[in-house]
Amino acid sequence: MAKIVECVPNFSEGRDKAKIERIVSVFKNLDNVKMINYEADADYNRTVVTLIGEPYSVIEAIMNMVEVCLKEIDLNKHTGEHARMGAIDVIPFIPISEVTMKECVEYANITAERISSKYDIPCFTYAEAAKEEKRVLLPNIRKGEFEGMKEKIKLPEWHPDYGKPEIHPTFGVIGVGARDFLIAYNIDILTTDEKKTGNFAKAIRASSGGFQYVQAGPVYLENKGHTQVTMNILNFKKNPIYRIFETVKMEAKRYSMEVPSAEIVGLIPKEALVKSLKYYCDVFNEELSDDISLDDVVKLSQKYLKLRDFTKDKIIEYFL
Amino acid sequence: MAKIVECVPNFSEGRDKAKIERIVSVFKNLDNVKMINYEADADYNRTVVTLIGEPYSVIEAIMNMVEVCLKEIDLNKHTGEHARMGAIDVIPFIPISEVTMKECVEYANITAERISSKYDIPCFTYAEAAKEEKRVLLPNIRKGEFEGMKEKIKLPEWHPDYGKPEIHPTFGVIGVGARDFLIAYNIDILTTDEKKTGNFAKAIRASSGGFQYVQAGPVYLENKGHTQVTMNILNFKKNPIYRIFETVKMEAKRYSMEVPSAEIVGLIPKEALVKSLKYYCDVFNEELSDDISLDDVVKLSQKYLKLRDFTKDKIIEYFL
Repeated sequence: MAKIVECVPNFSEGRDKAKIERIVSVFKNLDNVKMINYEADADYNRTVVTLIGEPYSVIEAIMNMVEVCLKEIDLNKHTGEHARMGAIDVIPFIPISEVTMKECVEYANITAERISSKYDIPCFTYAEAAKEEKRVLLPNIRKGEFEGMKEKIKLPEWHPDYGKPEIHPTFGVIGVGARDFLIAYNIDILTTDEKKTGNFAKAIRASSGGFQYVQAGPVYLENKGHTQVTMNILNFKKNPIYRIFETVKMEAKRYSMEVPSAEIVGLIPKEALVKSLKYYCDVFNEELSDDISLDDVVKLSQKYLKLRDFTKDKIIEYFL
Repeated sequence: MAKIVECVPNFSEGRDKAKIERIVSVFKNLDNVKMINYEADADYNRTVVTLIGEPYSVIEAIMNMVEVCLKEIDLNKHTGEHARMGAIDVIPFIPISEVTMKECVEYANITAERISSKYDIPCFTYAEAAKEEKRVLLPNIRKGEFEGMKEKIKLPEWHPDYGKPEIHPTFGVIGVGARDFLIAYNIDILTTDEKKTGNFAKAIRASSGGFQYVQAGPVYLENKGHTQVTMNILNFKKNPIYRIFETVKMEAKRYSMEVPSAEIVGLIPKEALVKSLKYYCDVFNEELSDDISLDDVVKLSQKYLKLRDFTKDKIIEYFL
């Protein structure tokens, strides 16, 4: 498999459809980059673009996006509910396939360096790409937003990681980061007892002592008449789906509750599925080939992970 | 059940047997306090005492211990490999039964207040009883030890939580804290493959994304010819034994490795066992009475948790 990253640039225009189209047009008809979708929010006045592709091709596409945004967006005239500090506010790189987090940190640094030197837009590296503790969380960097950044960036402790300590007058500054892929995963529990389902959530979520990269809570699905443990998995390598699924089944067992199915909301990398399918294939002595097709991944995911409503267009690699 | 705490005072004498006996004698023949054991270490020149009992009776006993240590120990003459800042160096309170952590924090504060006002020995509250972030970890407080504390305690940021900012000339200062009971727990894996056993440890330990209050690693037992996942469980309420045991079994299943037994090293509170036995009794539809006897706890622990070499004198409540 080739190196694949996800990149989710957020830009500060969510109302003017013509402008939005002109900006996202840079991602259309590219050879090694695919725009999965883009979602504009009028209240936020912000658009979130989801890209996947070969890392250096993604970086090229981002460079083109910066050029268009420079023309299209003047942050001095921007209002919206979402905090922002740049015409493109954030550019996170996410490892998908054959790519390490370290490489994504490198892509973030390369991107930040190129943008700052070509367009005179200061860049801060954040999350896994942060160069100091207090720059890990983006809100720390963004505090004060575009308007406050004019002075903040002059303070030695808030000099940008790339570029001069002076904001771009219309573009502002950008946060360029690297982080893990986030999987939205829900497990169906055939009960209406939200309290017990809440206990299962507590057993597995980090905030109450469970797995470190799992956020979870109970939810009652009125249409379906049963509850779910609804989750974000922030690191599927360290907290694989199968372990979470089996642990929830273990907990539900004490109340003889059925756990017949689960679902993925949005996208999931093939690797995250294969890593978990490997567990079941080991247990049931089934072969799992290294170059398993997406069709077979779907079949095994339905069989072992009990994923419902699951088709191959939920797997990132389908789009490449 | 009555309120029971564990208290583990460490005092700075580990060589002079007569002195050690005179100090621990305050814990003998008490009605509501039982000394489980005391271990003197000559290299450390330090003795660790394990007490359990009714909280206020424990506090009374500790007050008597302070009085004896004042006479017996002069820290100006003390040398040893273990860092120390007081003739009694630390006094941690640990909830065992019918006692909350909040109550243990209160016991720590009461003890610190009484010692400082009666004997003019400054006290720092630490761990769960810490009043500020940098006093949570005892080594932060103790840094500089008895000798350095003479000046350190005068700095406003290192004023003691109780008493004057001046060390007792022969006793020094004491750290009085509250923390959770630590269970030393090992799961036998019938393999010599330390790497795979290491992967099971990784699956469950906090440092690699697993359960938040579990420290774990692999170990090969030469005498027995197989490996173990060896663990400390820092919070058995949030990370109950059954969940850890079942998760390790789940992981071992993929390699068809047998997990026939487990062991508790040292002591375990009855509550920690009952909490886990409740899980299996739920699963297997077995009654578990609220006032289950220690004999029955032992039987069920052997049956379900597969504890080997397990007798009731491993359960704290046995000593009361």
